[in-house]
Amino acid sequence: MAETLTSDYKKLLEKEKELAVLQSAESIVNWDMETMMPPKAINLRSQQLSLLSVINHKMSIDSEKGKLLDKIMRHLKYDELPGVQKRNVYLMKKHYDEQTKLPEQLVAEIAKQEALTTDIWKKAKATKNFSMFKPQLEKLVELKKKSAEILMKVKETRTPYDALIDIYEPKMTTTEITRVFTELKHGLGSLLRKCVTSSEQPNMKILRRKVPIETQRKFARALAEFVGYDVTSKEAGGRIDETEHPFTTGYYDDVRITTHYFEHFFTSSLFSVLHEAGHALYEQNLKHEWMYQPVGNSVSMGFHESQSRMVENIIGRSRVFWTYFLPKLKLIAGNDFSDLELESFVHAINQVEPSKIRVEADEVTYCLHIMIRFNLERDLFEDKITVKELPELWNQSYEEYLGVKIQNDSEGMMQDTHWASGLYGYFPSYALGNIYSGQLLEAMQKKLPNWQTQLTKGDFKNIKNWLVQNVHSQGNLYDAPELIKKISGKELNVEPYLNYLNEKYSKFYSF
Amino acid sequence: MAETLTSDYKKLLEKEKELAVLQSAESIVNWDMETMMPPKAINLRSQQLSLLSVINHKMSIDSEKGKLLDKIMRHLKYDELPGVQKRNVYLMKKHYDEQTKLPEQLVAEIAKQEALTTDIWKKAKATKNFSMFKPQLEKLVELKKKSAEILMKVKETRTPYDALIDIYEPKMTTTEITRVFTELKHGLGSLLRKCVTSSEQPNMKILRRKVPIETQRKFARALAEFVGYDVTSKEAGGRIDETEHPFTTGYYDDVRITTHYFEHFFTSSLFSVLHEAGHALYEQNLKHEWMYQPVGNSVSMGFHESQSRMVENIIGRSRVFWTYFLPKLKLIAGNDFSDLELESFVHAINQVEPSKIRVEADEVTYCLHIMIRFNLERDLFEDKITVKELPELWNQSYEEYLGVKIQNDSEGMMQDTHWASGLYGYFPSYALGNIYSGQLLEAMQKKLPNWQTQLTKGDFKNIKNWLVQNVHSQGNLYDAPELIKKISGKELNVEPYLNYLNEKYSKFYSF
Repeated sequence: MAETLTSDYKKLLEKEKELAVLQSAESIVNWDMETMMPPKAINLRSQQLSLLSVINHKMSIDSEKGKLLDKIMRHLKYDELPGVQKRNVYLMKKHYDEQTKLPEQLVAEIAKQEALTTDIWKKAKATKNFSMFKPQLEKLVELKKKSAEILMKVKETRTPYDALIDIYEPKMTTTEITRVFTELKHGLGSLLRKCVTSSEQPNMKILRRKVPIETQRKFARALAEFVGYDVTSKEAGGRIDETEHPFTTGYYDDVRITTHYFEHFFTSSLFSVLHEAGHALYEQNLKHEWMYQPVGNSVSMGFHESQSRMVENIIGRSRVFWTYFLPKLKLIAGNDFSDLELESFVHAINQVEPSKIRVEADEVTYCLHIMIRFNLERDLFEDKITVKELPELWNQSYEEYLGVKIQNDSEGMMQDTHWASGLYGYFPSYALGNIYSGQLLEAMQKKLPNWQTQLTKGDFKNIKNWLVQNVHSQGNLYDAPELIKKISGKELNVEPYLNYLNEKYSKFYSF
Repeated sequence: MAETLTSDYKKLLEKEKELAVLQSAESIVNWDMETMMPPKAINLRSQQLSLLSVINHKMSIDSEKGKLLDKIMRHLKYDELPGVQKRNVYLMKKHYDEQTKLPEQLVAEIAKQEALTTDIWKKAKATKNFSMFKPQLEKLVELKKKSAEILMKVKETRTPYDALIDIYEPKMTTTEITRVFTELKHGLGSLLRKCVTSSEQPNMKILRRKVPIETQRKFARALAEFVGYDVTSKEAGGRIDETEHPFTTGYYDDVRITTHYFEHFFTSSLFSVLHEAGHALYEQNLKHEWMYQPVGNSVSMGFHESQSRMVENIIGRSRVFWTYFLPKLKLIAGNDFSDLELESFVHAINQVEPSKIRVEADEVTYCLHIMIRFNLERDLFEDKITVKELPELWNQSYEEYLGVKIQNDSEGMMQDTHWASGLYGYFPSYALGNIYSGQLLEAMQKKLPNWQTQLTKGDFKNIKNWLVQNVHSQGNLYDAPELIKKISGKELNVEPYLNYLNEKYSKFYSF
């Protein structure tokens, strides 16, 4: 009997492995499209990606898989399986149910509408024309509501929107997010007022020098190597390339990041490399013995973001890091950087200033951008507002949360691709990532009280090991709410993040 | 009735399209492995490639395909189908039969043995140790004989070896190859003697200057653009990267070449770029309306090689081409090239010298290397010789054909990867490519008597158009023997190629 269980489990894992391998191949084809592909190839490429996703879907809904899952879960000895194996079965079952319960026709309709809406969004954004975008967006939201209602039943969530959140942040809910965002808004608002009214403002001019792209490439490699993301050695499992928008992609031994070098804005690539390297470290340091298994994946988008934000901001924008690294930067850049001075540099890279564009936001205002999106998404999916009202509500929120006046919808609700691409329920993860990073910092501080001194000396080893041990190597063994409690001893809460921000920014802005 | 035929044909083409799209995606994953992949990813990559080939095989032997083929071919109106459609059906039927008649177990065994033998070959070559290579090679040859015997029945060829040749050069036979190779050997042998005994020998020192890789990259782009292989514009459908061994890969709008830059041997990349660009032009100029159809492919490996050799040698090593292009090269290289003089340069790049290594051979000796391999393969598959005897027979042949003494098997029968990789029947294509290129030149000369004058002025347009019209855009509509007759009016024959060589080399070597 137990042998049947073991052999069925093995068969199931074999099928799962095929899926993981296929997805990793898809990610290479996708990466190539963004980085290397000759422009003429775009139509052929969309055929390739569409075929691969059809094959992926067929493999995902393989009825053989369903039968094996049933057999295993009904087996008398099922409960005696080790935790990792039960978690694998749980994750496979969850994925299988989601994939099989959504009607294929709806999935295809959504994919088509997403492509269409994204295409129209690009044009509408370029011409600041919301009315061009609106009808397609309305269609997409309707289709997404349908799928959310189906997913709600499969996932047994309270609302359809919760079912969407669960895709990116399993077991997270609107109620929970609303709770922490309310506290966060209060804290950030108060902090923001102190920063902008302070007389101690940074000198931003020092960042506006011209830095040759080749020099910036050297910065990027040096930063990557510093945090332990190897892109140059014979054993390298990563590489850095250039794209319009930075991203990380890959799996275990092949994890690649991209960045964008601006000749007159060198700090942009510094921090995007640190950010993506944070993501890359997570993927590279998943447990090797779990490769090709569902547990051999990250926990959630929010946890992924906690790793990128931790490396980019908590480490990468800290005074202690630059105490060590600014001299390195100067060595690479040569004379052009001789005037850069630690204190003014660190304040400049931590400037707080309300802005209209999320991706350019600083640590203090970033989550406020996210809250605006979350509120609107939630209300949209709860039928409290309509697509038509989005621009006006967006602009009102920006005035309320950030005190900025939106001039047109291209710098307003059309700035991000997410809604055009059907990524509803995704935005909260960004803010959750910051909140997690605060709790992780607090926990790390207890275990590594000297981490700042170590960093000043250029020693990142212990910090990295702590992240690997507590986050990366845990894979997808626990859902995020459980993992954050295991690591920090506490439920999700914004206090550590707000404490971190207050301590840091009170120094820069003297309050 | 006719509607059934049409709809069945469409269904079949849909399936064929999936296969073509999948193969093009596989080629991207393969290209990435050779050019971009971080070294650590090799195991994951072999999993990806193996999965994609399993999916490819499943799609190839889809029984639905077999049923559609049967229905179509038995249809009363089948004979009334247009020629292109019948050719498509013929090619699909041929591929399907070959794929389904080979037992899966044998296919898997061969794939495994090929990987194993290639691995051992690398080690054996590095240590000059044939006895290490021998047992694995013997196993592979035995398996290949088994599959050749099965293929012989499917393809209805005279011998098993003919069935292998047919994979790369459909409808070509041992008898035909033996006939033309006998004539070619005679002609080349006599030509070779005249060259090596001439007192007019080129000054090879002029090519041994140091040329920065960045300069060589510029040469490469300039050469590519010259022949109409676009790698830089916004509409580019190609790119040039760097690998140990140059190759071309891709499909229609995404055709990529690679080269290898040697700092002290700049002509190596010049001619490898021209060679691969010749291949690339073929793939890029297949008829777009045939994309995803079997006719939307090249005719054969030999015809492919005719295109690369034509661009590399007939065009690329001609005095007229360099009359125009040497000044361009000098412009790119600057002062370092000021001493280069047309006559001595053109003679140096056309040096004739018997050598041990095929890939370094000149135009006069190249086919002699191929004949040696062909004779040995043929005798091996006709059970006239054994694997054990290969090294000695190889060395005897090199003495006889080229007058060179092989010191060890790494510069002898272990120099090429083909036999370790299971590519039996492939070698003849290389020589056939040269023979075809001679016939193509003769035919082109009739239509474009001024091609040399045009080339001197830097005008490649008419030559390219002639190639596109006569070769590239014909796709796989005819098998090679038929196509060469259509273009040149004659059966396969070595005379034009020998005439071309005699005329060219009599000038350099004054005979």
